[in-house]
Amino acid sequence: MRVTTGWRAVGPTELRRVPLNRRDLRPDDIALRIDYCGVCHSDLHALAAHDPDKEPLLVPGHEFTGVVTEIGPEVTGFSVGDPVAVGSIVDSCGVCAMCEAGQENFCRFFPTLTYGGADRHDKATTLGGFSREYVVRDAFAHPLPAGLDPAAAAPLMCAGVTVWEPLRQLGVGPGSRVAVVGLGGLGHLAVKLAVALGATTTVISRTRAKHDDARKLGAHDFIAATDTRRTAAAHNAFDVVLDTVSVPHDPAPYLRLVALDGTLSILGYLGPVSVDVTDLLIGRKKLSSAGSGGRPATAEMLRFCAEHGIAADIEVLPSSRVNTALDRLHRNDVRYRFVLDLSDLDRPQAMTSSSGVGPAV
Amino acid sequence: MRVTTGWRAVGPTELRRVPLNRRDLRPDDIALRIDYCGVCHSDLHALAAHDPDKEPLLVPGHEFTGVVTEIGPEVTGFSVGDPVAVGSIVDSCGVCAMCEAGQENFCRFFPTLTYGGADRHDKATTLGGFSREYVVRDAFAHPLPAGLDPAAAAPLMCAGVTVWEPLRQLGVGPGSRVAVVGLGGLGHLAVKLAVALGATTTVISRTRAKHDDARKLGAHDFIAATDTRRTAAAHNAFDVVLDTVSVPHDPAPYLRLVALDGTLSILGYLGPVSVDVTDLLIGRKKLSSAGSGGRPATAEMLRFCAEHGIAADIEVLPSSRVNTALDRLHRNDVRYRFVLDLSDLDRPQAMTSSSGVGPAV
Repeated sequence: MRVTTGWRAVGPTELRRVPLNRRDLRPDDIALRIDYCGVCHSDLHALAAHDPDKEPLLVPGHEFTGVVTEIGPEVTGFSVGDPVAVGSIVDSCGVCAMCEAGQENFCRFFPTLTYGGADRHDKATTLGGFSREYVVRDAFAHPLPAGLDPAAAAPLMCAGVTVWEPLRQLGVGPGSRVAVVGLGGLGHLAVKLAVALGATTTVISRTRAKHDDARKLGAHDFIAATDTRRTAAAHNAFDVVLDTVSVPHDPAPYLRLVALDGTLSILGYLGPVSVDVTDLLIGRKKLSSAGSGGRPATAEMLRFCAEHGIAADIEVLPSSRVNTALDRLHRNDVRYRFVLDLSDLDRPQAMTSSSGVGPAV
Repeated sequence: MRVTTGWRAVGPTELRRVPLNRRDLRPDDIALRIDYCGVCHSDLHALAAHDPDKEPLLVPGHEFTGVVTEIGPEVTGFSVGDPVAVGSIVDSCGVCAMCEAGQENFCRFFPTLTYGGADRHDKATTLGGFSREYVVRDAFAHPLPAGLDPAAAAPLMCAGVTVWEPLRQLGVGPGSRVAVVGLGGLGHLAVKLAVALGATTTVISRTRAKHDDARKLGAHDFIAATDTRRTAAAHNAFDVVLDTVSVPHDPAPYLRLVALDGTLSILGYLGPVSVDVTDLLIGRKKLSSAGSGGRPATAEMLRFCAEHGIAADIEVLPSSRVNTALDRLHRNDVRYRFVLDLSDLDRPQAMTSSSGVGPAV
């Protein structure tokens, strides 16, 4: 076993710094020093569902970048010192139809999640990227292309590929009319990617104050969700509507925005939704979703982002302020993604942690 | 006004023979003698929702064939004596984006339904095809291609185009894997059309007794919905699943049958359904629907059916037995579509009608 330092859950929005074990490297493993890890909405969901008094530990974080520090004897794709990125899955069966199709995220035997998953070999619960080191199978680490800022690139590995997949699946390109509902972590990357793909892109947000941000991100238009005249005029106007709203909601208003044969893709909220089949029928509209991505799509997305200079708009906080980040994310107080700088884990912890709890290491 | 004879609703599954008015021909109208009219599940829904004690009259029937008996002075596409077919819509605005796209069924100003609709000119309520004559704008009548049996072709005009549209929209052809859930009026035509389009086609039915029928219709496989082993093996196996079940139901079991990037199209039931977004996410599956069709798709479907010798499997009843047809349809006791022969309306009504009610004319 190797020992590193990271942040484990002790409450719904409270983490505490602790020593963590990482496995010794298998022949196809790499070890990486994590420099930056994004804070994702699903981290909040995982924390809310976790009981800190029970095993196993929860260490969130599934979009991170860093530098390779060690490689197993069979690793050929990485060398020590390479910049590297890891997303929300770290292994899969490799032989099912989904893995063969390059959609390891849909592995029939379930992919190994970056945290809260079960390692395929020793069944240990995986611990996430809110830590200074990670050990991962080489096939599930991605070289970070030159030119991408490592901090701003971290959120590409979950938020980025989650919006990239539907944009690609739905054939978005020049001439496409895309609406992005909600301008948060997912939404702001969806706008950048859709614009770079050549789509005419509109942001729909409840927050009028995001008008300027939408324009800065490259959006061609902005509609305040409260503007009934403009939303009515936008009915049937979009080939693709990406719904990034992260709380339970009725998709019907967004389905109305979809054009003939177009698609509403629900990305921000994963749970039960009710739709009236007639709302799909009139205009032959489709309802879909997407999340995470396979290895080929992730690699493609990273290349595309490097070529187009796309990364997340981030606010970097030292990892000691992770509880602040979680709390502010819970209140949607971030433009547009928190990224933790984990270098502070190399230093001894201050006597008082960000949560007011004493040192745990 | 012209006077004809037809069947008006007097109860949820009870119609009575009455004289009916038809409008005098406008310049672009044709009059047709209706010979055959299919009985559609939506007729049952319309009857259930109708209050026979209130205006307007309800005369069902929106898939019928007959012969042109008269043409308006501006009609060029039809001559007296031509075989003709009419479906579920009889007019539309003609200028909106949907009409321009040939999807008059999605007309932004709502298409005029063949019965229960409002005529665009005189606002009169349209009365359907359970009658001996209909007057319709020429653009919404279709020449019935030679070689199609007029009785068996009648259901193509609603059931046929309703399954044709999703098959075409979803690109079904050689190599496609199609499942048809439910083998009724819609389902049996879906099987014939999918097979003729070159798809490997599987029927999924709760009724094991339909196994032989499925094979006769050309299906390559049959799965009893109660066969848990086979349904589990069929998970993720179909590019297109056409769900023709006509009662409210949970679509989740059918969504599981859909392959990566495939589509579940709900055709038989139009109302609210609940889906878990995660069931769409895993495999990037799509939920859609379809119903009726535009003029180009309807014409294309008729040509395709004539070329491939496809029509409905029908049970023809004299229109005096319409109440029996409705009652049996309500109990799903038909293989696979009732078609009324309306020629009996040329004769004086017998003293006792099929419903036991005395003559109304």
